Formats: sequence, structure tokens, C-alpha cells
Amino acid sequence: MPAVAMLARTPQPPVSLPGAARPAESSHLKIDCMLAYELDGDCEFMFLIHPVQHPSQTLVQEELRLEPGVAHRVFVDAHSGNRVLRLRAGAGPLQLNYSAVVERHVDEVDRDAPEWPVHELPDDVLRYLLTTRYCESDLLGPVAQQTFGSLPGGHARVSAICEWVREHVQYRIGSTTATSTARDVFVQRSGVCRDLAHLAITFCRALNIPARLVSGYAAFPDPPPDFHAVIEAYLGGRWVMFDPSGMAPVEQLVRLATGPDAKDVAFATIFGPARMVAMSPELGRMDTAAAPVGMRALAPVP
Amino acid sequence: MPAVAMLARTPQPPVSLPGAARPAESSHLKIDCMLAYELDGDCEFMFLIHPVQHPSQTLVQEELRLEPGVAHRVFVDAHSGNRVLRLRAGAGPLQLNYSAVVERHVDEVDRDAPEWPVHELPDDVLRYLLTTRYCESDLLGPVAQQTFGSLPGGHARVSAICEWVREHVQYRIGSTTATSTARDVFVQRSGVCRDLAHLAITFCRALNIPARLVSGYAAFPDPPPDFHAVIEAYLGGRWVMFDPSGMAPVEQLVRLATGPDAKDVAFATIFGPARMVAMSPELGRMDTAAAPVGMRALAPVP
Amino acid sequence: MPAVAMLARTPQPPVSLPGAARPAESSHLKIDCMLAYELDGDCEFMFLIHPVQHPSQTLVQEELRLEPGVAHRVFVDAHSGNRVLRLRAGAGPLQLNYSAVVERHVDEVDRDAPEWPVHELPDDVLRYLLTTRYCESDLLGPVAQQTFGSLPGGHARVSAICEWVREHVQYRIGSTTATSTARDVFVQRSGVCRDLAHLAITFCRALNIPARLVSGYAAFPDPPPDFHAVIEAYLGGRWVMFDPSGMAPVEQLVRLATGPDAKDVAFATIFGPARMVAMSPELGRMDTAAAPVGMRALAPVP
Amino acid sequence: MPAVAMLARTPQPPVSLPGAARPAESSHLKIDCMLAYELDGDCEFMFLIHPVQHPSQTLVQEELRLEPGVAHRVFVDAHSGNRVLRLRAGAGPLQLNYSAVVERHVDEVDRDAPEWPVHELPDDVLRYLLTTRYCESDLLGPVAQQTFGSLPGGHARVSAICEWVREHVQYRIGSTTATSTARDVFVQRSGVCRDLAHLAITFCRALNIPARLVSGYAAFPDPPPDFHAVIEAYLGGRWVMFDPSGMAPVEQLVRLATGPDAKDVAFATIFGPARMVAMSPELGRMDTAAAPVGMRALAPVP
Repeated sequence: MPAVAMLARTPQPPVSLPGAARPAESSHLKIDCMLAYELDGDCEFMFLIHPVQHPSQTLVQEELRLEPGVAHRVFVDAHSGNRVLRLRAGAGPLQLNYSAVVERHVDEVDRDAPEWPVHELPDDVLRYLLTTRYCESDLLGPVAQQTFGSLPGGHARVSAICEWVREHVQYRIGSTTATSTARDVFVQRSGVCRDLAHLAITFCRALNIPARLVSGYAAFPDPPPDFHAVIEAYLGGRWVMFDPSGMAPVEQLVRLATGPDAKDVAFATIFGPARMVAMSPELGRMDTAAAPVGMRALAPVP
Repeated sequence: MPAVAMLARTPQPPVSLPGAARPAESSHLKIDCMLAYELDGDCEFMFLIHPVQHPSQTLVQEELRLEPGVAHRVFVDAHSGNRVLRLRAGAGPLQLNYSAVVERHVDEVDRDAPEWPVHELPDDVLRYLLTTRYCESDLLGPVAQQTFGSLPGGHARVSAICEWVREHVQYRIGSTTATSTARDVFVQRSGVCRDLAHLAITFCRALNIPARLVSGYAAFPDPPPDFHAVIEAYLGGRWVMFDPSGMAPVEQLVRLATGPDAKDVAFATIFGPARMVAMSPELGRMDTAAAPVGMRALAPVP
Repeated sequence: MPAVAMLARTPQPPVSLPGAARPAESSHLKIDCMLAYELDGDCEFMFLIHPVQHPSQTLVQEELRLEPGVAHRVFVDAHSGNRVLRLRAGAGPLQLNYSAVVERHVDEVDRDAPEWPVHELPDDVLRYLLTTRYCESDLLGPVAQQTFGSLPGGHARVSAICEWVREHVQYRIGSTTATSTARDVFVQRSGVCRDLAHLAITFCRALNIPARLVSGYAAFPDPPPDFHAVIEAYLGGRWVMFDPSGMAPVEQLVRLATGPDAKDVAFATIFGPARMVAMSPELGRMDTAAAPVGMRALAPVP
Repeated sequence: MPAVAMLARTPQPPVSLPGAARPAESSHLKIDCMLAYELDGDCEFMFLIHPVQHPSQTLVQEELRLEPGVAHRVFVDAHSGNRVLRLRAGAGPLQLNYSAVVERHVDEVDRDAPEWPVHELPDDVLRYLLTTRYCESDLLGPVAQQTFGSLPGGHARVSAICEWVREHVQYRIGSTTATSTARDVFVQRSGVCRDLAHLAITFCRALNIPARLVSGYAAFPDPPPDFHAVIEAYLGGRWVMFDPSGMAPVEQLVRLATGPDAKDVAFATIFGPARMVAMSPELGRMDTAAAPVGMRALAPVP
């Protein structure tokens, strides 16, 4: 059998725009994340609360404290690159305190980044065109074509999708549940950040633009602190971040986990009788000059 | 940060039952798969019609012919291990003829294989507990608990699930569509092999038994030939195959692709205006003695 | 055109069982219903809080007070026989206090009442075999056949349906919304009284047993007071009441409204920006002897 | 209790536009409807194939033939005014031939007809604001508000709704099933005439415009002949007909049945094992002068 090489186009290195000689901006961000549960019996936990290794961020230091001090480990999932904290705990209270300092690098955005035709997409990007549990791109194909099919492609089209979602889907806490999908949100026109992200992803995929969900720590202007969900679309050979909710600047999002949709990036996946009793994933900007001073010497992320 | 190792239990090697000294059975199977499309324009195809490398089968020879002879390549997907045929073709007819000889090895089944508790499941098996597009294990949790929760665990429970599905869901071609999910099938009580498989997988996951879909070539007693879909449940530290449809003996299934659900193992994922006009994925048993005689010398699968 | 009369069987008068010479039991029940709303603008209301005229109950007296004293009227809907309170109110608070005394008559139940074949059903009963917004009997037909199709027909079968619902659907406030249907409830296995009623109705209709929803005042053993929803199935030529929730004795239910499903018997249908702020539909048993004493002389229901 | 009369506004007589002194147009239409079934056992049928009495049409003559000549009767349903043919037939073939001549009167359309506020709607019109099996106006409320909420009200708004439906929902036979609802159609953007009608009705109701489904005989430009489904919206105190599909002129539709949605106006509701084998509901325009000549003297509709 002739193994004819028909290579998809090579993914691109981080963008270096003409005239963008000045170094990308960078800022130090501080994470203070507390999660508290009450367990009625043995529970197995998978947490995605550790920032991943990614060109956009450097983990300066981190610390995890558990009460009680149960055995646990953090591993990098081979499929996703996500850093998973896996642990088991018995009946009673369980509290996690994770704190970290991250240096966030911000590149300029190429607003002319084009869509790539499907036959040029790398093999491992194709999966992000498929329909998933929360992003039924097969069901919303006709809507996507009608609404966005004739717009100019690339960065402009994904921006138009996010804008449409922001205008038509009201942000309202409690209006959706853990099982709500993009179709549900498209119909009911309300949701929270993950719902808006799901709908935007769904439209992108239906138009053959690879898209995925990214969870992260974000600094919201209004309390209470919460995890955030944004999207990435594959444009011009790289993944470009968009926030369909428009609630927090993507330049300051600390990246936690990446996946096809929310089931893959949940900050906690729990097996067993646990109830969350408190949650406070805070992200703050540090005084850049002062930041490293006075930090405890923590082992860097391996 | 103390990196305490809390290892999940090690997956088990192929079962070797006490007293099972005699070698496992083995048979030679012949694949003749023809797919024909009519394209109205440029299309990109991802086919999963090549048997994968797996302890249960040895690929003796294979040959792929394409009309017209468009450029193509076969690669092993890093996530799934599936062998993907990727190609692009222009307007007009497209025909694939794939033929192969596979030696199928059959191990004895351990009918006492237990379920493993979640905290003992290997990291890379946990993903098969999650809800997916076609297997909404979150939605069918209460049903699964009510119906199967009090049964004895392990192989017996998965067998009971498959039997329930076979008894309650009528096999009826045309009763479902490409977008039908396990919930739909649970309600409407009819479907085809992939629908029955989705429902069985969903029940397993809802009971914390990892489960996944396997596509394959099968020898059905009645025409027409078609691809088959069965399931695997993770029991006793290995993946055990079940056929919820009961339509073809799993001992003779040639394994094509493995994934969380049908979107990951579709024999063809197509981007562009293509219509299937003919399809004939045949599997036959060879006379073991005569089989290798007269075969063309083909390069073995790399 | 020959107008051949093919009369359906005549509906039966109230049952008079052999040996049931003694008069049916009867009791006096007292209704105290308070509803309070806060309106952000003009609203139109349709309330179904007035007991209907029905052989099972005699309205002894009733009184309605409105704060503020807006114009209103009560009419009997020609289709349903329900007594509708229709009113319009402007921005500000609105409070209704409805009180009444009802004499409830209880006939013996014929536990041998048979199902009537469809061709014997009266014309105006046939509508209760149709699929409706909350009772998709078309979708749940196969399930109904599998689960109840081979049981003995008539009163025994409807009882079995109600028992199945009670056993398999957990009563849980907040587990459903105003848009949840029988299919949703069948899948999620939880709901409130109206959801259980919808599912039972759906199964009945799918088996060609006419069934409908009845709302009423009920005396629940546990607070808080709430309206109740039960079902009626057409058996032996009359409508027979069942309570799938098993929460309150049907013998003491004061009948409010009857209809195909919840959209037809909602205690309040509101057009405009109103929020309910309090609700207390209480039903109590009166000391039979003392009951009429000291009552204010109210105009009887016209 | 003060029975204060708060009358809703009185429904209006047929429109008489200023300057519209000339008599409304009128035409004679001929119906030839054949339906054929194959029954595998006893079946009960409810047909809605007889034109109703309505100001817009005069039934000149009609004839029904049944093969075999089973007992049957035609009655006017008290709720809907629909003329129901009810019959029972045993195993074997069943064929209906219904023919009629109808004089269709056409009034001018008042394109300025306003919406009436809810508090002015007559009591028996309010039911057409409720959510129904196929028209989930509760679920599509936000979409309706976003899309049509700020348009000018009345005839113009309903026209805009129908136009939107026609532009966004592709007419495609086989794209929906008997269980498809307005929500399904809104998402999938394809359907047949009843689906388009359901979606338009749903949008109207969500905006507090009463709306209902009307089935009828129509003369389509292209074969095959089929029953048609259009809508009526309550504007200016009367029901005004619109055809969201735009497939046939409403001026020539012969009205069969009216109801909240398709379950109420199905041309055939069947209980039992029957399969349709042929269907041809033809409508043709008669030469007005020649029409009455040579007609058989049939009993007029009672």
C-alpha cells in the first residue's frame, strides 16, 4: 500500500506581527483558591485547579494544602496536558487551599488570522470539529450556516459569533444546570459563562472552525469569585482565545484546563457523596515590582 | 508540595484462567470492504476502516485501492490508537476497496471479573466514566441505579445490562438517526446496534463502570453486510467485550476503532458534499489451512 | 350519505355497588386560600382557585376578598367546566383571600371497573387519549406497552401504573420546572405531584385509557400547604380518581379544575410582570356537627 | 361576593372596510379526497376530512363512499366545531372517497388589524395563548421577544413572523416526524407545512397574540396533492389566516379543522393496526358558471 504523504499544513509558532518588535506584555498574577466539601462517605476527586504549562504563562510558585492531609498526587494527563489532582477522602470535612503565582505573557492578537480549510488542519486538531456532549454542532449546523455562513471568515467570523452570543444570551446565574447543552442555551437564551462558551464553540465547529473550551482563573469586576470559561478557536495555525461572555479580559486569564467541552475541564469531578460548602477561587494582580519579594521558596512545577 | 504517590491499581495482563493451559483459539478472517461515494465538490474524509493493532488480532495482510487514485495516508491517532485513513477528493465518484486477512485470537472470558472501585481505576481509564454526546450517563443515573444498582457487581452486572437492553430495545433499522442518543433510545425503545451499545455504555458509566464503544467488522447471519458496534467494560483490570445487540459473536469481530462513543469511531467522517451510494463491509471466515496460500505478499502493517 | 348511527356506549351514572345501600360518606371541609403577588406593572390573571360544581362536592359557602379591590369576575369555562376568576391589576401588591366550605361526598370505589375499548368511548372522552404538552403519550408508547401492556386491564392496571410511578419517581421539590414533561420525569425519576400525575396520565393514554389531570385543595400531613394534582382515568364508563403521589387521601380532595394536563389547570395563569410572594392554600376538616354553626350567610354558588 | 362585570372587548363581525362596498369575491371549489388503508385488525378511526361550517365557505354538496360499507357517523365536536367522521373497521382494506363542492367567500384583509391587549381578549380566545404539545410557546418566549418584540404590532408583526419562518425554515419532506415540535423545527430549520405553522403559532403566542392551526384542502402548484396546514392569529377582534409556508393562496383554502395544534386537527387519528397505502386529497377550481349544473342532488350539510 503506497503511503503517500499528504501533510496537513504545519501549525504556526506564536505570532510575531510586523512592527511588533517590543516584547509582549507580562504581568504577575496571584491565585488563592479555597474549596471546601462535606463528605458523607468515601469520595474520589479529580480536581483541575492547577495551572497548566503553556507558552502564555509561567508558574512561579505554587502550594497546595489539604485538611485533612489525605494522600494525593498531581499528574499531567497525556491526552489533554491538563494537570490533574487526584485524591481520595473519607467522611467528614475536606478543604483545599491552593495558592500560586503565575507570570502571564500576552502576545498581540492577529485580527487577520484566517480560517484554515479542513484539509490543511493538523490531524490532532480535527477532533475539535466533532460534536460533543455539550456542543451539539451537528444539531446547530443549519442555524450556524444561516447566521454566520456568509460573513467574512477567520478572526472576524469568530468575533462575530462571540458578539452574537453575548447579545442574544443573557448572563443569568441559576438559569442553567450541569446538564444544559448548547442547544438548550440557544433556545432559552440565558446561561452562565460556560453556557455561552458552549454555544460559541458549537457555532464555530458547525462552520468547520476547530474550537474548544478553556477553564481558568479570572479577575471579575464583581464578586463573588468563580472559575471562568472561555473558548479557543483554531485560526491561522494556532489557538486564539475569545471570551464570549465578555466578563473578564482574556489577557489576565490563568489557564487551567483545555478540552472539547465542560465535561473535560470541570474544576472538580467527584465520585461519591460530597457536597460543596464553600468555594473561593480568587485571582489578583500583583504589584509587579514587589511580587517576587517575600515569597516562600516553593519547588517550581516539575 | 508533597507529591505523595497514591497509585491506582495496575491494569492486568490478558487473563490466564486456572486450568486454561490449552492455547486460546484462533481463526483467520477475511475482510472485503467496499465504499462508494458521489462527490459534488471537494471533500475531506477520515475513514476508520483499518483494523487496529491489538492483542486480540494479528493483521496478516491488507490492501487498499482507491478509484480515482487520490493522495492519502494512514496514521495512528495518538489519543485513541485508531488507524485513520485521511484523504481528499474532488467532485465525481470515489470508491474504496479495502481487503485484509486478520488472525483473530480468542481468550477465555473470566465471568467472575469484578468491578474495580473508582479509586483503583488507572488515570487513563477514568475518562470512560464521563458523560458524552451519545451516552448521557449524567441524565440516566437514577434509572441505572434503580434498575441495576442492587444486582451483583462485575461481569454479571454488565451482562445483565446488555440483556436488559436486548430485551427492551427493539432492533429496527431506520428507527434512529445520526443524532439519536442513549436517552432517546431509552425512551423510544428501538434502535440499531450502535444505539443499543450507547445505552449499555451509559448504564455502565452511571454505575461507575468504565465503558466504551468498539466498531468492527462482523459476520452477520443475515445480509446486508454492515459495520458493527459493540461495547467494552473495564472489569478486573482489563477491557472486556460485550455485544448488547447479540447479533454477532464477539469472538469473530475484527476490531476497527475504540472511543467514548459513536462520534469517535464513525467509519467515515466527511467534510464536504458527499453522498454514499454503496457500501459493503464483508467479513468471512477462511478455511484456516488454505488461507495463506496464494495470497499476494503485502507489506505488513507497520 | 347514510347517516348510520354508531353510538358509543353511554357513560355510566355514579356507581351503586351491590350491597352498598348505606349512603355514601360525606364530610365538611374548610378552605382558606391566600395568594400574594407583587406586580411591577399591569397584569392580567386567570385563577383556578374556585371549587367546581361536581357530583362529588357541594359548595356550602364561599367568599373572595381582594386587596386592592380590583374589578374581577368568575365565569364557568364552557369547554372544561372550570370556574375561572379573571382580573386585572396594576403595579403594587395584590392579595387574594378565598375561603369556602365544601361538603365532600365519597362514593365507594369499584375496583373491578373495566377499561372500555376505544370504539365504545364517548366522543367527548376521546380527547383524553391524545398526546399533550406535558403528557407525550406518543413518545412513551413503547415503554407503556412493555411495562404495563400485559397486566390485567381496568382499575387494576391504573393502580399498577400509579404504584409504579410512586415507586420509581422520587418526590423532590425543586427537581423539576414549569416546563418539565412526562418524558423528562420518566428519565430523571424525580418530580413533584404534578409531574407524577403527568407520567401516570401519559402511561394510561399510551394504553388507550383516557386520563386527565385534576387540581385540588388537599390536606397534607406535612406543611407547607400547597395545591395538589391527581389524575382521573376513564374506567367502566366514569372518571375514577387516583393519586399517583399517594400524598393525600383522594376522598378529601376538593376539586378545583380538570383538564388534559397542567397547562389547563394551573391555579394561576399570569400575563405580565408579577412575582408571587406568599401562598397558603389550606384545607382543613371541620367538626361535622359544628360546621354550619356560626357561619356567615354567604350567597351560594350560582 | 360582588360579581363585578369586567367584560372583555366584544369580538368583531366580519370586516367591512371603508370603501369596500363591492361584494367579496367568491369561487366554487371541488374536493376529491381518496384515502386507502390496509388494516391488520380492528381499528377505530376519527377523520377530519369534512369541511366545517364557517362564514368563509358554503358547502354546496358532499358525498362520502366507504369500501367496505362500514357503519359510521359524522358529528360536530362541541369544543372545536370540527366535523368528525368516526368509524370502526375490521381487518382488510379500507377506502374512503369523499367529494364535495364548496363555495369559498373571500373578504378583504385588514392589514392594519391591531393586536388586542390580553385584558381585552374574550374568555374563549385565551386558550390560544397557552403552550401546547407542538407549540412550546413557554420555551421559545425569549427568542420571540428578541426577534419580533420590537416590531410594530398587529397584522404587520404576524406577517413578519410568517416571513421569518419562510426564510429560515426550509420546506423539506421527510425532515420531521409526527413528534417534531416547534422547538425542534426552530433548531433544525427544516420541516413541512405543519411544522412551519407550529413555529409561527409558537412565536405569536409567546408575544401574547392568540394563534391556532387550521387544516384544509389546498390547490398546490406541484403534485402530489396533500392536506395543508396554515395558521390563524387573533387580530382586531377576529381570526385572520396566514400561510407561513407560502405554498398555496389562503383565499382558496377549504377549511377542515381548527385547533391549538396538529394533534387536534389531524386528518386521521387511528387506534389500531392500520397502514395508509394511498392518499389523494385533491382540490380544484370549478368553472363558476358551469359548476352547479349537472350536480347530483345531495343533502346539504345539516
